[in-house]
Amino acid sequence: MSTMTKKTTITKKKLINSISQEKGIHPNDVRSVIQAFLDKMTDSLSDGNRLEFRDFGVFEVVERKQKIGRNPKNASVPIIIPARMAVKFTPGKKMRRLIEGDMSTTDV
Amino acid sequence: MSTMTKKTTITKKKLINSISQEKGIHPNDVRSVIQAFLDKMTDSLSDGNRLEFRDFGVFEVVERKQKIGRNPKNASVPIIIPARMAVKFTPGKKMRRLIEGDMSTTDV
Repeated sequence: MSTMTKKTTITKKKLINSISQEKGIHPNDVRSVIQAFLDKMTDSLSDGNRLEFRDFGVFEVVERKQKIGRNPKNASVPIIIPARMAVKFTPGKKMRRLIEGDMSTTDV
Repeated sequence: MSTMTKKTTITKKKLINSISQEKGIHPNDVRSVIQAFLDKMTDSLSDGNRLEFRDFGVFEVVERKQKIGRNPKNASVPIIIPARMAVKFTPGKKMRRLIEGDMSTTDV
């Protein structure tokens, strides 16, 4: 499917422990800051705001229009997939450069 | 375009200041933790790993296949848009519930 071999799932806990060790801050204090950060991101987005973090990327809430789909078990029956709000993430420059570095040849 | 009236752009700095006030931690210390967190997220993704934060959501690196596009100035000329790696964000349950709360009627 992809050129990557193994995908590890990294959790919040893993990142918190790693930051705690690196900075010499108690994991509870790191967790408290990170959790507040993620909660504030969620709140900002659910209020319809846009989050812009330099280098990292942009989060915004976008509307996915209603579309007509098909019931996979009975293709003759069209089903309406209602319009919904979705979160769109666009990586920033630094993130994009690092991620796209993965595709061997192209370097634009 | 959308039902939302005004989108404010929230920056890292704004969230850092708000966390600093709320927790009584110096903004420099909050910034140091948040920046380490974002940098570690970027590094994890560029290593091909998946990030999973309960309630918040999942980030993963996916391959967008090569596709044939059109030059908007000269529609008869097909152009090849090369395959590339992209970051896909899927909101978690809590985020989705809050975001979808914006769409008046539907509550699944």
